Amino acid sequence: MKHPVIALLTDFGTEDGYVGAMKGRILTDLPEAHLVDISHQIRPFDVRQAAFCLNNSYPYFPDKTVFVAVVDPGVGTERRGMMVKTSHHYFVGPDNGIFSFVFHREGFQAWEISLGTFSEDVSPTFHGRDVFAPLAAWIGRGENLSKYLLPLREPQTFLRPPHRVGEKEFQLEVLHVDHFGNLILNFHKNEWLSFEDASELRVVVKDLELREIQPTFAAAPEGELLLCWDSSGFLQIARNQGNASRSLAMGVGDPIRLLL
Amino acid sequence: MKHPVIALLTDFGTEDGYVGAMKGRILTDLPEAHLVDISHQIRPFDVRQAAFCLNNSYPYFPDKTVFVAVVDPGVGTERRGMMVKTSHHYFVGPDNGIFSFVFHREGFQAWEISLGTFSEDVSPTFHGRDVFAPLAAWIGRGENLSKYLLPLREPQTFLRPPHRVGEKEFQLEVLHVDHFGNLILNFHKNEWLSFEDASELRVVVKDLELREIQPTFAAAPEGELLLCWDSSGFLQIARNQGNASRSLAMGVGDPIRLLL
Amino acid sequence: MKHPVIALLTDFGTEDGYVGAMKGRILTDLPEAHLVDISHQIRPFDVRQAAFCLNNSYPYFPDKTVFVAVVDPGVGTERRGMMVKTSHHYFVGPDNGIFSFVFHREGFQAWEISLGTFSEDVSPTFHGRDVFAPLAAWIGRGENLSKYLLPLREPQTFLRPPHRVGEKEFQLEVLHVDHFGNLILNFHKNEWLSFEDASELRVVVKDLELREIQPTFAAAPEGELLLCWDSSGFLQIARNQGNASRSLAMGVGDPIRLLL
Repeated sequence: MKHPVIALLTDFGTEDGYVGAMKGRILTDLPEAHLVDISHQIRPFDVRQAAFCLNNSYPYFPDKTVFVAVVDPGVGTERRGMMVKTSHHYFVGPDNGIFSFVFHREGFQAWEISLGTFSEDVSPTFHGRDVFAPLAAWIGRGENLSKYLLPLREPQTFLRPPHRVGEKEFQLEVLHVDHFGNLILNFHKNEWLSFEDASELRVVVKDLELREIQPTFAAAPEGELLLCWDSSGFLQIARNQGNASRSLAMGVGDPIRLLL
Repeated sequence: MKHPVIALLTDFGTEDGYVGAMKGRILTDLPEAHLVDISHQIRPFDVRQAAFCLNNSYPYFPDKTVFVAVVDPGVGTERRGMMVKTSHHYFVGPDNGIFSFVFHREGFQAWEISLGTFSEDVSPTFHGRDVFAPLAAWIGRGENLSKYLLPLREPQTFLRPPHRVGEKEFQLEVLHVDHFGNLILNFHKNEWLSFEDASELRVVVKDLELREIQPTFAAAPEGELLLCWDSSGFLQIARNQGNASRSLAMGVGDPIRLLL
Repeated sequence: MKHPVIALLTDFGTEDGYVGAMKGRILTDLPEAHLVDISHQIRPFDVRQAAFCLNNSYPYFPDKTVFVAVVDPGVGTERRGMMVKTSHHYFVGPDNGIFSFVFHREGFQAWEISLGTFSEDVSPTFHGRDVFAPLAAWIGRGENLSKYLLPLREPQTFLRPPHRVGEKEFQLEVLHVDHFGNLILNFHKNEWLSFEDASELRVVVKDLELREIQPTFAAAPEGELLLCWDSSGFLQIARNQGNASRSLAMGVGDPIRLLL
């Protein structure tokens, strides 16, 4: 690979130097690596937020990009480390659902990382530095990694489809609250397009009913709530130049009714 | 270009993956791009803070650097996207004042980005990924972009000179509060140098009068307020090892008297 | 150098553009520089946190990496700027203890940076941009820097060994609180290994006594306090999937008893 891209996603923050250690480790094994920060500001232990963040980013990266995603509350336990390969990308991280959207969107192969084949210096609390970072570098070098890998079936996923509660009624949940306070729901544009007569979509949130999907935030008056598709195709509730999550006092996991 | 630098500035935070999407998009079109993060921690929708941040950074970058600056509350409305070229640099982003300091400091050419020439896949809420990022990559590749561009006159700017209220008196405003709480004022060293007898400068803030411009924060006793020039040449009120903004309870837009 | 790595560590945050200015300055002098962010989120003026962060990162970087570390409350005073060289790495920054761990861990040479040899444009408040950044670029270019350097003996360090208060009793202090709230203590695994009969280690914190060093956070029940070695080998008090610092109301500098 001429410009091997290694993209990093963690909940480490940067102020302790743990991300720096991972970067140093990768550059030591792959000096020509093009390191890209996706985020190190994931809420501590929030695997779902990391999965969502990855889903918004990874489809846009060049072929052969290696993603190292480490939000890893179970590090050092029996939770498995894994490598995933799709037709375009590689993913390295814990098997805890962090790659749920990848599994949902496309075909993949998955392997468990066999810790026993690593040197004895693996810190039990920091696989990011001692296992995932070097493995990513070796992928970037094009090495044969079969000795580090075991087959793995049925990796973890947390992604559930919208719950149907009537012929034309679903119970959705807030999948994610983004930086601007937009509430992103587990209902994708593709699902909507598969219904006939879908133009009548309504969302009931608290005592409000929202109709019509706007093309953009600013199509609603300033300060008003609106529905629109987020940039990955999920339905979202937004407030033009405001914060929908704060004003509705709603967050991840909260239920929302959808009527078609 | 051998090392095409693309520098990024947004209010996206990193935890949603939107910045990652922009980075992926740029690397897909320009694998040898040297991506540089200026900031993704601009306060949401704060175009002025972004403009100030850009002003502190861009003059130091190599020739031909492309700056992609996306603080864009009007995305999807009639607000125009634009490309700006100065004798050293390129700038891509919304026409909402984010490049005010660039226009103030040097000669430039500006073009409107013609959205109609982009593919139909442009998300109305995310021009950062679908318009500005690819355009920046194409600039870095040295492509002829004329088919994407229309002439643009009088781009937006918010920068206003200090308000003269007497022969030797100005009303300044706080232009920016930096990370350390320094209050940066709309009065530049060059303006000061253009006055005769300028050595008598005094700043009146609340019931305090500050005199003398210090060479450095630490020239004042620890915890004391002082005046000095910031590293871009603007007058600032600082507190040595403290936070002037917090202790004076003053922020962006607050008025301050300057006596010469 | 084929891939000269310049790694950056500051307390600047990114929203003011000061980090951007340093990056631009480095790329202007060394276009092939591989810039790596370690952190810009160090607490303002917290030299100790920066030193700890650097210690967690730098040993993993490739040979010849240049670290630019700027947490610099004394900028513009008599405090010296310095360059440090170890057998693997270069370090540039203020002589205020920020490199304490480097001096503790390995042999080094240190020089004072002679400001008089720099151009007159050095801002007294921003040596990061005008002194340390260019010097790092010139190191990366392999230049002879002797005209900028003076010999320097006894650079500043704040690192103190654990205080022995009895034959088998030490008073430790909290050296650092990390992003997860783990309390990291000034007692290193190597010290412990140098004791006979060391298996009996106990830590007394408030009215609790912690025994046994766990291999990993998750070896303790969820929500429980535990002892383990951090990934750099320091003893730490952690709470499995919780925040030890918050729940114990303890922070940097607080004393802790160690019984062997």
